[in-house]
Amino acid sequence: MFRRTSRLISASSCFLFLLLTTAALATTDPLPSWNDGASKNAITSFVKAVTEKSGSDYVKPSERIAVFDNDGTLWSEQPAYFQAFFVFDRIREMAPDHPEWKTQQPYQAVLEGDMKALAALDKKGLVKLVMTTHAGMTSDEFAGIVKKWIQTAQHPTLHKPYTQLVFKPMLELLDYLRANDFKTFIVSGGGIEFMRPWTEEVYGIPPEQVVGSSIVSKFEMRDGKPVLVREAKLNFIDDKEGKPVAINQHIGRRPIFAFGNSDGDLQMLQYTTLGTTGKRFAGIVHHTDGEREFAYDRDSHMGRLDKALIEAATNGWTVVDMKKDWKVIYP
Amino acid sequence: MFRRTSRLISASSCFLFLLLTTAALATTDPLPSWNDGASKNAITSFVKAVTEKSGSDYVKPSERIAVFDNDGTLWSEQPAYFQAFFVFDRIREMAPDHPEWKTQQPYQAVLEGDMKALAALDKKGLVKLVMTTHAGMTSDEFAGIVKKWIQTAQHPTLHKPYTQLVFKPMLELLDYLRANDFKTFIVSGGGIEFMRPWTEEVYGIPPEQVVGSSIVSKFEMRDGKPVLVREAKLNFIDDKEGKPVAINQHIGRRPIFAFGNSDGDLQMLQYTTLGTTGKRFAGIVHHTDGEREFAYDRDSHMGRLDKALIEAATNGWTVVDMKKDWKVIYP
Repeated sequence: MFRRTSRLISASSCFLFLLLTTAALATTDPLPSWNDGASKNAITSFVKAVTEKSGSDYVKPSERIAVFDNDGTLWSEQPAYFQAFFVFDRIREMAPDHPEWKTQQPYQAVLEGDMKALAALDKKGLVKLVMTTHAGMTSDEFAGIVKKWIQTAQHPTLHKPYTQLVFKPMLELLDYLRANDFKTFIVSGGGIEFMRPWTEEVYGIPPEQVVGSSIVSKFEMRDGKPVLVREAKLNFIDDKEGKPVAINQHIGRRPIFAFGNSDGDLQMLQYTTLGTTGKRFAGIVHHTDGEREFAYDRDSHMGRLDKALIEAATNGWTVVDMKKDWKVIYP
Repeated sequence: MFRRTSRLISASSCFLFLLLTTAALATTDPLPSWNDGASKNAITSFVKAVTEKSGSDYVKPSERIAVFDNDGTLWSEQPAYFQAFFVFDRIREMAPDHPEWKTQQPYQAVLEGDMKALAALDKKGLVKLVMTTHAGMTSDEFAGIVKKWIQTAQHPTLHKPYTQLVFKPMLELLDYLRANDFKTFIVSGGGIEFMRPWTEEVYGIPPEQVVGSSIVSKFEMRDGKPVLVREAKLNFIDDKEGKPVAINQHIGRRPIFAFGNSDGDLQMLQYTTLGTTGKRFAGIVHHTDGEREFAYDRDSHMGRLDKALIEAATNGWTVVDMKKDWKVIYP
């Protein structure tokens, strides 16, 4: 009898304690790097609507899938995708074992830092550079190479580690969504095994929630040890129409929240928001801040932002103006 | 001051309450359908070893990845994979719209229940049946078809819904692992979109933790609505060497725990346990119970169990003897 009463008391004190803690948390702004305004309001209103159990827009936690593009959405992508700098760094590192590269394109252009020749590379040349640096080793070996690179490499013009070129407001958004029982995924055109070695530490997104482009892997036993060997053969390009396909393949549910920054994300934003009955959110990071970051959209040589911007107006998507909406860019 | 004290009291009562509850739970057998013995002991010892924070075999929760084959491991697979019965049921349901099937193979064999002709089908015939029933509709439509089937269909000889032909001891194992902060995945040769509509309800495994074979999907806008159309083209076979490849593609980490039941799972068991430094577990469900389920291994027309059984002895894998190790088979 005593035990039962004491448990009851403990249970209700426990509840009270949780209540007090929750109340304390509720007064803190979950998005302190976001200026008050339409963008921030659209995000918090959406999250409140789908998490309020008694509301008509309630979505149960298991269905709270949020997808994010990476390049230009979670970190910068100028003057080239950061994975391109990984390729260049690797070519330079591998060059001593390949003296013939000094006079062989596309390697020569990389070794001489000939940006004009690099910009003019055709698809075949690009694929050659990617395969030279991404294939021919095991998955474990490649993960080791990427880990070492991300820990030591520096952005060529900003002279900072790449992990410091992530957007602080987006890190807060990821945390805010997870605190509201969302499962956060990356769905990027970048290499899936290029991202996985560091996304957990940098974004809090574990490998199994990273979706990306890939080359073919092959299972092999080497000296009694099972390995996956990365082959110089394209497997999947996770861009444009590929993004909804990859979301379906990896996640198997339609997201209710999506963020991108270019026309490469258009289909993902459509897939998330159109033709469904429930409440949905789509956001676009618009690079408007030439001073603190970079300003570009329609005429960019990176992923162009044009059609997605037009559709945003029609579909009620939130366009984040980096200059106006974000108090700070980098952590 | 009062507030602070009351919070402190609440916090410690909270702790006490949790402690009492935990103590109560600890005395309950997490695997009541398993007989005491080597198999049960191997499982619980492993889980204790990797979850004990002070132990040398401790694995942090994020790395506790457990993978399970489905057919023959989580549910029965006799006298044919249950997905084959889905194919047959669908062909019969679609037949009124295809009068020509009455005299056209392989459809005729299905409609007449000609098991001999069906067993003799070549790969081309099988693929035809699969594509007729799995392609040509959207992913959402296919999910609806599967959901309706799993809710209404019955096993042809056992006359029970397929969801009642899952193994109770394995359901307990899934729960036990999740209670110990494992993330449980299915890695099956079966169709990924054939499994996802029901695995969450039946196994507690959400769509994003289901890996399987697939056909190609294509993104399309239909009347302003984005859809994924399933095409009659193979994308990936998640069997044998394909299993580690798919694990890497979908999960991106090496599992520490794997369960299978045939040579189709051999590479997954190798990939999980061999050439790694930490503690690992691999289990094989050996179908030894002709009375309560089915008895088969080396000479089975289903996934053969031969090489994996031989390697189990060498590698210290746990072979579960269904007859001896399991108190009950079905829930």
